[in-house]
Amino acid sequence: MKSSLKIFKIGGEVVDNPDTLKLFIENFSKVSGSKIIVHGGGKEATRLCKALEIPVNMIEGRRVTDARTLDVVTMVYAGLVNKRVVAALQSNGTDAIGLTGADGDVIKAERRNPEPVDYGFVGDISSAGINVRFIDSILESGMVPVFCAITHDAHGTLLNCNADSVASALACALASDREVDLIYCFNQKGVMRDLNDPQSIIPLITPKDFQTLKEERIIASGMIPKIANAVKALETGVRSVAIKHSDDILNSCGTLIVK
Amino acid sequence: MKSSLKIFKIGGEVVDNPDTLKLFIENFSKVSGSKIIVHGGGKEATRLCKALEIPVNMIEGRRVTDARTLDVVTMVYAGLVNKRVVAALQSNGTDAIGLTGADGDVIKAERRNPEPVDYGFVGDISSAGINVRFIDSILESGMVPVFCAITHDAHGTLLNCNADSVASALACALASDREVDLIYCFNQKGVMRDLNDPQSIIPLITPKDFQTLKEERIIASGMIPKIANAVKALETGVRSVAIKHSDDILNSCGTLIVK
Repeated sequence: MKSSLKIFKIGGEVVDNPDTLKLFIENFSKVSGSKIIVHGGGKEATRLCKALEIPVNMIEGRRVTDARTLDVVTMVYAGLVNKRVVAALQSNGTDAIGLTGADGDVIKAERRNPEPVDYGFVGDISSAGINVRFIDSILESGMVPVFCAITHDAHGTLLNCNADSVASALACALASDREVDLIYCFNQKGVMRDLNDPQSIIPLITPKDFQTLKEERIIASGMIPKIANAVKALETGVRSVAIKHSDDILNSCGTLIVK
Repeated sequence: MKSSLKIFKIGGEVVDNPDTLKLFIENFSKVSGSKIIVHGGGKEATRLCKALEIPVNMIEGRRVTDARTLDVVTMVYAGLVNKRVVAALQSNGTDAIGLTGADGDVIKAERRNPEPVDYGFVGDISSAGINVRFIDSILESGMVPVFCAITHDAHGTLLNCNADSVASALACALASDREVDLIYCFNQKGVMRDLNDPQSIIPLITPKDFQTLKEERIIASGMIPKIANAVKALETGVRSVAIKHSDDILNSCGTLIVK
């Protein structure tokens, strides 16, 4: 029987709010078995860019990352947020290690083609770029790897990646040897039929349902790439994908996506 | 026979200058056997404090670290500088992993007593706070641990430490199982008899010589704590301490301090 692994991705809303983060860390420390955290960046990077008078340029929700912006996101994601999460885990008795993709060469990315849009130092990753052996050794030692979304190209350049994509690539790469559950945590209770009605959570979505929900335009546009990624992860062998509130990781609330 | 270990501490002057850092990394990658890097912060933290209008307050060369300054040094040391060094090592074919003291609970520190001077979030470490088992496991896997001088108190608070002290505490803690050589790299050729004469390098200092050199006021005041630390490290079992230019790590230039 394959051993199980839970990968929790926490969004920017979670790392931005100290109380929300604290509760998540406390609950996370109670989750048994092998587990991984992938965190987003939150608004800190944008605040720091503004303070340093570095223009913030987002295209379709992705940050255009010039050299100075790369320094900022490296500082905020790999330094401030990552080490805050690791120190909080340690104080809860959970041994953890913070990682960028450069550490242990754990995630190699490719700089995105500058055509048609030049995003600068932005990288794309695939499960082939994941150093599974190294992650296995960390998990086997009982530690929790905590990933930020900064990776490298193995030629000395750091790259800014999307934290959802990092979580998904990790899940796919690790699914060959483990039963992987991927849990996206944010500040909503799950995928809603009606964005104005928190009671309208869809508890279960299959790939077939996803087609229907898209056709009927029930799923909002921002949620479509997330669920599309989830469906792709299931096809690669990931056991389940959940979308839920970061407060709810110890219970079965939220939206579960399974084949 | 004990296996050998070389611990290189690189000063702020080295990490501040891209060409100097590049040459150091290239040479470091050619050093055989187990090795560790400890890096200082350089001027980036002071620049960032100024840009964010955070008052910079240094007392006897140590940075007074309030909450906002702690965020800045965590961003710069644990994020920007640490990940730059790790990515550069990877591009030179040297597998490396960047660490704060919180990662793997590898260095526990104690917040410094606020009396007589309140340095804020500044920590002091002893070799007892070093997680030798975890460092051994990294070295045995063939990776280079790269330490910045940010540690934690194990209760969720990060602490700003002195990089020289981190290097020295690591050397002392690891000396029980290994033959440890500690190499302080900076932008001078070694300890000089006459600060205005680069030819006046003292090639060898013993603890006895140190007493004489101090009494004769030949060693400049800034160098005294460094050599005093070196002598203490020798007494704890460290094999040798060298003080040399970061360009010279592959040759025997510089000042060697041995019993």
